[in-house]
Amino acid sequence: MMTFPRRIALLGSTGSIGQQTLDVVRQFPEYFQVVALAARSNVTLLAQQVQEFKPALVTCFADTPEVEAKASRLLPQALLGEQGLLAVATHADADIVVAATSGLVGLKPTLAAIGAGKTIAIANKETLVMAGHLVTQAAQRAGVSIFPIDSEHSAIWQSLRGEEKPEIRRLLLTASGGPFRKTALEELQSVTVNQALAHPTWQMGPKVTIDSSTLMNKGLEVIESHWLFDVPYEHIDVVVHPESIVHSMVEMIDGSIKMQASLPSMHLPIMNALSYPQRLPAADTTLIRELRWADVATLHFEDLDLERFPCFRLAIEAGKRKGTYPSALVGADEEAVELFLAGEITYLQIAELIEAVLERHQSIDQPDVAATLEACSWARRTVRELWKKHAS
Amino acid sequence: MMTFPRRIALLGSTGSIGQQTLDVVRQFPEYFQVVALAARSNVTLLAQQVQEFKPALVTCFADTPEVEAKASRLLPQALLGEQGLLAVATHADADIVVAATSGLVGLKPTLAAIGAGKTIAIANKETLVMAGHLVTQAAQRAGVSIFPIDSEHSAIWQSLRGEEKPEIRRLLLTASGGPFRKTALEELQSVTVNQALAHPTWQMGPKVTIDSSTLMNKGLEVIESHWLFDVPYEHIDVVVHPESIVHSMVEMIDGSIKMQASLPSMHLPIMNALSYPQRLPAADTTLIRELRWADVATLHFEDLDLERFPCFRLAIEAGKRKGTYPSALVGADEEAVELFLAGEITYLQIAELIEAVLERHQSIDQPDVAATLEACSWARRTVRELWKKHAS
Repeated sequence: MMTFPRRIALLGSTGSIGQQTLDVVRQFPEYFQVVALAARSNVTLLAQQVQEFKPALVTCFADTPEVEAKASRLLPQALLGEQGLLAVATHADADIVVAATSGLVGLKPTLAAIGAGKTIAIANKETLVMAGHLVTQAAQRAGVSIFPIDSEHSAIWQSLRGEEKPEIRRLLLTASGGPFRKTALEELQSVTVNQALAHPTWQMGPKVTIDSSTLMNKGLEVIESHWLFDVPYEHIDVVVHPESIVHSMVEMIDGSIKMQASLPSMHLPIMNALSYPQRLPAADTTLIRELRWADVATLHFEDLDLERFPCFRLAIEAGKRKGTYPSALVGADEEAVELFLAGEITYLQIAELIEAVLERHQSIDQPDVAATLEACSWARRTVRELWKKHAS
Repeated sequence: MMTFPRRIALLGSTGSIGQQTLDVVRQFPEYFQVVALAARSNVTLLAQQVQEFKPALVTCFADTPEVEAKASRLLPQALLGEQGLLAVATHADADIVVAATSGLVGLKPTLAAIGAGKTIAIANKETLVMAGHLVTQAAQRAGVSIFPIDSEHSAIWQSLRGEEKPEIRRLLLTASGGPFRKTALEELQSVTVNQALAHPTWQMGPKVTIDSSTLMNKGLEVIESHWLFDVPYEHIDVVVHPESIVHSMVEMIDGSIKMQASLPSMHLPIMNALSYPQRLPAADTTLIRELRWADVATLHFEDLDLERFPCFRLAIEAGKRKGTYPSALVGADEEAVELFLAGEITYLQIAELIEAVLERHQSIDQPDVAATLEACSWARRTVRELWKKHAS
């Protein structure tokens, strides 16, 4: 059991989760202390964070001359590149490492932090999706806990407090259904980038917003749930819940369903991960908006339409096939979404390209970090080749 | 920690909760064993239960010549009257006593069972409402646990698994709102007995169905929650939820709301109370109907209209005023509902009579069992006097 103040190393401090993590630290200075910060390339914001939180160690891990130049001016003490990132992840004074980088860069430092015996608060999807087997094995070996920073997984985690794993019947992830839940199937072909970027309930970056609209995001969350809670895919379901008030549910073997709810908030899962098992008195602060049930008024639930969301199906298939399939899925999706955002392919071609890549993929069992990353970059290259072939 | 099989003494075995308790025992014979049964007057059914479950002790506690005569024929070994009831409640072989009698008769045997060190599974409202102070003090002294058999309290109890009491912000009991949630206020004056007996989501006896329609029932549940979970009235709220799917909620100090849901079922809270902390694999049995979210489709939530439900307000006031006010409330409500069911008073006069009785009540602080019961019967007499005065 960790005591307070907990000492935090934060990977990805200038991103959305990183900034909200620092909101929590700012609100509860008696509970938390920042010992190390890592950001990719937003040196200006990182320098402000350093001034406010006075970490012992700071790093900019984008390996570009521009970042190096800016860092040497604003943060001359900062480490640079992957070595800096690993140093933050394993800082001797850190109790808990918040893995809030986006994309693949979080994988190695997360494994390093686990190896160094740190508690992990994980917001990064790719790490668990691509390397869930490596992360959970390492965590078990090192005896460290991995806490989710994500509304859905935090809801499941909170619902499972005081419950026993063998008594879980199934996990039920809720999905907003995104902006195209009701769009006529034939209109999906002509969806524009701006339409896909208009998410009904959550404000997020462009990549994850597109992933939310295709339900790829929900598929990745199912894979994460599989690893975080050690539940087979057959016992993980998704239910569409457009209001994003109930963040997920757990059905127990007696038929009792436990759920967690709040107005959409990332501060809440961050707080839960940072202060577990204690809860912080945040309800009367500006971090949390009060949920008034009479204002919420109505909650809707419906089945997921698999025909409408082929990316979801592809994700679950990749998860079940294991090996490097999930890595290929992540790489193919990243590249396909990039092409869509650049206006190079249609909305429906995202799923078509991912499916074509997964069909061509030759998986490796129990891949190590290198094989995991290689499968991902193979998939990115293959998307681009298939697209060029198609475009020419 | 109790082991299995758990040995059960069941007070009120022929009532609705009693019969459903035996359904659970029947489904899970490896978990439970019936050691003692007590029923009021349904000797025929009790005799069948004795044949099936073979308890070591059995009693009919209705003290009437008819019951005695029938019992001496069908159950010659049965004890009779209050002594029998107390013997069942304190049976040496019982691990857990299910208090499922209706009305006041459960109070003394429940206190006796606590004194004998039994775990209590409590379905009887009056005991906690009238004597919550006695029951909780006795339970603390004896070091025994009191588990709720009731959808709302079970939902709160389940939501609080793994949570710490000081981290509770408020309890939120859900209320179906009964059949008159949308009735024009001026039409409530002319509500008939049959209209009031048509509850939208639960099948129950006439007294509790009327109490549900007036929200008296919800007020009594708030008082029970106060005692069961040791939460002040200021931190217990009610939200109307007509579908009765979410059975209640708990809001924690960080703003996280935990909820428990199922299709309406009394078997589920019974199982939770009997097997705690273990959960029984009931989801694939006929005891539990599967909740399909797409079938449920929509859940509604609205504020409670206090003007529409004066009985609710009266209950909360009585709870807050403590002493013998809750007992007077129970007695006045019993008598007023009886007059309404007999067609002697109008629907709105139920609340008017209760309010008039509470205004006249002279409360005693920290009442003992005798004072508690006396306040209740004083209230019944006073309702009848007021009604006669009004009728003449």
